[in-house]
Amino acid sequence: MNRLIVAAAATLATLASLPAAAQFQKPEDAIKYRQSVMTVQANHLGRIGAMAQGRVPFDAGVAAANAQVVATMSRLPWVAFGDGTDKGRPTRAKPEIWKEQAKFKDLQGKLVGEAEKLEAAAKSGNLDSIKAAVGEIGKVCKACHDDFQAEKYSAN
Amino acid sequence: MNRLIVAAAATLATLASLPAAAQFQKPEDAIKYRQSVMTVQANHLGRIGAMAQGRVPFDAGVAAANAQVVATMSRLPWVAFGDGTDKGRPTRAKPEIWKEQAKFKDLQGKLVGEAEKLEAAAKSGNLDSIKAAVGEIGKVCKACHDDFQAEKYSAN
Repeated sequence: MNRLIVAAAATLATLASLPAAAQFQKPEDAIKYRQSVMTVQANHLGRIGAMAQGRVPFDAGVAAANAQVVATMSRLPWVAFGDGTDKGRPTRAKPEIWKEQAKFKDLQGKLVGEAEKLEAAAKSGNLDSIKAAVGEIGKVCKACHDDFQAEKYSAN
Repeated sequence: MNRLIVAAAATLATLASLPAAAQFQKPEDAIKYRQSVMTVQANHLGRIGAMAQGRVPFDAGVAAANAQVVATMSRLPWVAFGDGTDKGRPTRAKPEIWKEQAKFKDLQGKLVGEAEKLEAAAKSGNLDSIKAAVGEIGKVCKACHDDFQAEKYSAN
């Protein structure tokens, strides 16, 4: 593993060290929290994506600020997918999340690693590096959503 | 102004430098985004608060990780309170936000400053400093919610 991925794994371990039960009183709180994290993450990744695709002018400082948010968000939602959080509020989380934990956790680690690479690329200010990093993180988003995110929200 | 507040103001300026129109396609997107940020922020501040109040054991590393999230979140929601985002999705944002912009902006800056102080306190690992910082940021949360947050969500 490279240095960034080691650092990412350490951060993930720290954030996961509080038991989920201490963090969320009810399953609906966990679902609302993880959905909120995903909303924030998608928004900020989208802002960098717009620059990578030339839809908005490239600004290195803005890209770096947004990448820092993406990297922070990438570490957060996983603790909120604990047992019993498959329902309680409309959710697109598929039952496969709780059946294929090894695969799901592998993708979590990959997302955190790619988000840290994006942060490093954005700090460097090199647009080509940022474009490449956006492409890589996008692949992880898609891989996880393809397997673990339903098209429609559950009824509760 | 102290160093932290100057740094906070600079970060806020960078994040605000993209026009809101480029960030949110529709008012409902802005409302969903700012609500998501607030949900994440409240969750992580709550985790530190639980340690400050002795409800969960103090862990300096966990406190620091959570404070970093709070500091990041504190800078984000403000761009999503642009003109025309008073409706479009159920919201607790009061009309006063758009009538008392100077007061609202002053509280934004105070929140960012107190969140950075909390981050610094958490990094120091000193529980008494963390307790004091949690108290101060809590005052800013309350001051803003008292004036600008309705008790109930709007119908749309």
